[in-house]
Amino acid sequence: MINAVNREIPDELLKNGKEVYQGKYYMDGKYIKKDSPKACRFVKPVESKLCKSIREACERCGAHDGMTFSFHTEFRDGDYVASMVAKVLVEEMGLKDITVAATSLGSAQDIIADYIEEGKIIGVQTSGVRGRIGEVISAGKLATPAIIRSHGGRPRAVEAGEVHIDIAFLAASTSDEFGNAKGVGGKNNCGNMGFAIHDAHYADHTVIITDTLVDFPNMPSSISAIDVDCVCVVENIGDAKKISTKEARMTENPRELMMAEDVARIIAATPYFKDGFSFQTGVGGPSLAVNRFLEGHMTDKGIKMKFALGGTSSSICKLQDKGLVEYILDTQDFDQGAIDHLFKNPKHLEISLSEYANPGNKGAYVNMLDFVVLSALEIDTDFNVNVITGSDGVLRGAPGGHPDTAAGSKCCIIVTPLTRGRMATVCDRVVTVTTPGDCVDVLVTDYGIAVNPLRKDLEECLDSAGISRVTIEYLKDKAYSLVGTPDKLEWEDKVVAIVEARDGTLLDVVKKIKPLVLD
Amino acid sequence: MINAVNREIPDELLKNGKEVYQGKYYMDGKYIKKDSPKACRFVKPVESKLCKSIREACERCGAHDGMTFSFHTEFRDGDYVASMVAKVLVEEMGLKDITVAATSLGSAQDIIADYIEEGKIIGVQTSGVRGRIGEVISAGKLATPAIIRSHGGRPRAVEAGEVHIDIAFLAASTSDEFGNAKGVGGKNNCGNMGFAIHDAHYADHTVIITDTLVDFPNMPSSISAIDVDCVCVVENIGDAKKISTKEARMTENPRELMMAEDVARIIAATPYFKDGFSFQTGVGGPSLAVNRFLEGHMTDKGIKMKFALGGTSSSICKLQDKGLVEYILDTQDFDQGAIDHLFKNPKHLEISLSEYANPGNKGAYVNMLDFVVLSALEIDTDFNVNVITGSDGVLRGAPGGHPDTAAGSKCCIIVTPLTRGRMATVCDRVVTVTTPGDCVDVLVTDYGIAVNPLRKDLEECLDSAGISRVTIEYLKDKAYSLVGTPDKLEWEDKVVAIVEARDGTLLDVVKKIKPLVLD
Repeated sequence: MINAVNREIPDELLKNGKEVYQGKYYMDGKYIKKDSPKACRFVKPVESKLCKSIREACERCGAHDGMTFSFHTEFRDGDYVASMVAKVLVEEMGLKDITVAATSLGSAQDIIADYIEEGKIIGVQTSGVRGRIGEVISAGKLATPAIIRSHGGRPRAVEAGEVHIDIAFLAASTSDEFGNAKGVGGKNNCGNMGFAIHDAHYADHTVIITDTLVDFPNMPSSISAIDVDCVCVVENIGDAKKISTKEARMTENPRELMMAEDVARIIAATPYFKDGFSFQTGVGGPSLAVNRFLEGHMTDKGIKMKFALGGTSSSICKLQDKGLVEYILDTQDFDQGAIDHLFKNPKHLEISLSEYANPGNKGAYVNMLDFVVLSALEIDTDFNVNVITGSDGVLRGAPGGHPDTAAGSKCCIIVTPLTRGRMATVCDRVVTVTTPGDCVDVLVTDYGIAVNPLRKDLEECLDSAGISRVTIEYLKDKAYSLVGTPDKLEWEDKVVAIVEARDGTLLDVVKKIKPLVLD
Repeated sequence: MINAVNREIPDELLKNGKEVYQGKYYMDGKYIKKDSPKACRFVKPVESKLCKSIREACERCGAHDGMTFSFHTEFRDGDYVASMVAKVLVEEMGLKDITVAATSLGSAQDIIADYIEEGKIIGVQTSGVRGRIGEVISAGKLATPAIIRSHGGRPRAVEAGEVHIDIAFLAASTSDEFGNAKGVGGKNNCGNMGFAIHDAHYADHTVIITDTLVDFPNMPSSISAIDVDCVCVVENIGDAKKISTKEARMTENPRELMMAEDVARIIAATPYFKDGFSFQTGVGGPSLAVNRFLEGHMTDKGIKMKFALGGTSSSICKLQDKGLVEYILDTQDFDQGAIDHLFKNPKHLEISLSEYANPGNKGAYVNMLDFVVLSALEIDTDFNVNVITGSDGVLRGAPGGHPDTAAGSKCCIIVTPLTRGRMATVCDRVVTVTTPGDCVDVLVTDYGIAVNPLRKDLEECLDSAGISRVTIEYLKDKAYSLVGTPDKLEWEDKVVAIVEARDGTLLDVVKKIKPLVLD
């Protein structure tokens, strides 16, 4: 069946109530009976929940074949826990038919790619599929299609019972021996643990894995002991230095800075740019650089930001310290500066993924966003964005909060260079739709700015402010003129990944690309 | 069937999996599939969740006949919201077959007694049943037996699906227009909102009722907007001055002070009295007075308390300010001093009822208690305690956290005068068992101290410390010699209330007393 973003969804996927994507507000006002954990009662006082090893924790929680295990990735490329646990489950315990449900997956979890190839891990549910995991899934090695969800789609799917977590293994920078856990105060701090909070509420069993055991009570905590079965102490849960990836660093590229400056001008030209506005940037270079240009517009106009949302970097913390941002509602920390800043300012607060972006709750914070600035691997002339597959069709990205913030915000701006290497970023038809075009309002490139024709109001704003704009078709033509029209990708029939819209409807599928040669 | 505290539980109550009480750890390690709300999805951004009236909020949430409505009682005798809402439901909307599920009920909700008599309210689930509500229930006016649960039993029952809340109406001292709500910063502050947090997670619909609307985001908040459907602003949500009842004030009665001093001596004589111990007192005069005597023992021994738990009064806050208490883990505030103190000290923290006492979670804080000091209306020679029915058999009390802390703590001390007026407090057989004797360790009266024979270790501690003790039978005989053996109460067959043990098994029933003449 063809969905609202003009993608063919195989009929065999439309079972168990699954529907195709039908527009960004399709599920609004509909009721959902939430799923819930089957949890063990701790009536009798215990002296401690400490386990001697990850294996002991797995055994206490009844780990067995066919289970779904969850991990969070606040440590990003520096995460050790997912690999460490996967190794115990597969190599020490010999489990099979495992499904991994993670907030994201990347090169830090390359070992999972091995277990996929060996057929031990048969299901993957995640936002990101970077590194070798993306390659083996694209090569059709995973027994079932991977399910790609946004940061809001993940807690929604958990609440809908579409992914039921048997055991959540949650890395925590500190924990007491009853499981009150947080991302600060330890030897490897990730800062925010908002990615883990929802899992602790919904998993049948929760295991806290820490490298810094602290005195009870480790409070206020991000994870409450009442949701925790076991606590396990390891040497190191991750390498905090690797949290800050190159994408998350401030760009000095003049083209990127120019685009960032354009984005800030566009923001300043809209009626939403007034005292008390709200704002989020993604982690890509030009997106992140918008922070620095926004400051000038704010001081010129004498206005302040009410809240900055989402993944947090030092640059927004500095704006808060200058008094230009009242609240930071933080879901993950992109660098050491942000990690150190969290909780220090009483208005720099941790929120959970569900509070951030879950379209199944009673109003996520993305719904209160005025502006979001996001990047794209590709964007097509319907304004559909792809952030999951490379131009070669291989999985190597992560929707993260992209579809959620785009849908919730009043003004979603995509900023991307027109071409990358020999590839056109603006194109006729993106390889995979990860954010539907009806959620995207403005495109800023190094060759011009295009406004989604659905947003006549924003077109007028730009025109009034003297910001010149072009059509997206113009940008596509320009891109093709620079690097040529891309060759059509050739696909096999096999679906290797399903891209769910944030509301659980089916947005797109990724098929096995042919021929794919693995390194 | 006769249960483990020797009470006859009518067989007709043993349905839907209900069992009789079988000892304090009977449910330990058993699994529970939790219930969950059926919630409305707010996918589309809304500008506000404000309703013009309570009625509008009720209508938006689909209030209809036969529903279960919940309230919290952090405002204690000063609560206006439960009555205000009940009036709208019954008088404005004409609803019937209503069940009220409240954390407690007392004279502030006397109007509910009228609706019980009129047959509009047909079910009551609560901890406390004081005031006219207790009288009308005892008189058999409620269509179904009231269900009396402890503070831990309530969230357990909600999670077990034994009470499913259709709409929670939650009084909040401040809220923003999206429902981020808390008990501070308003014109009527209750401080803690720990009684309300769990309801917000499990109710199908949640309505915040506040008298102080504040700017978004009202964070950090006790209730998160993602659980809130509607926000309603009223003139006053309660009278904070009435939070401090006479029971919650510090006693100057010499007998009570003497008993409090004995309790402190007993605590100091146990091995649990060491640096880092934990402690809770109930709200009754002699219980509360223990705080002042404990201070001397602590400074003598040079030790500090790790945490004070539960309902919080100024006296424990003062100990924290002196550096003698590290953490206060607070579930409700008993006076203005405690309300003002909450959150000011970064280690005076709000916890939810479930964190506090729920025996269905993975380890409530009561499980980590060393000492709890509690009062009793009656205690019998099996150490069973009654805090719900007067000696006339009429409902006029509240288990609150009594059964939870008694079961969880290492040393539960009951402190009570041997007689009250013409009534023996220590007796052969309590009118109603609300806390089972296997959870009670020591009894302190103004005529002597008795240790539960199950606790030989504590007997030795007292003997070593030179604290004289008697048997509980001695105390009972003494009481009877002073005020006479009580007349046997005469009951009709009709069960008017069911007393659930904290784990959901049936502890006792309260029958209709004959003859009962209402005022």
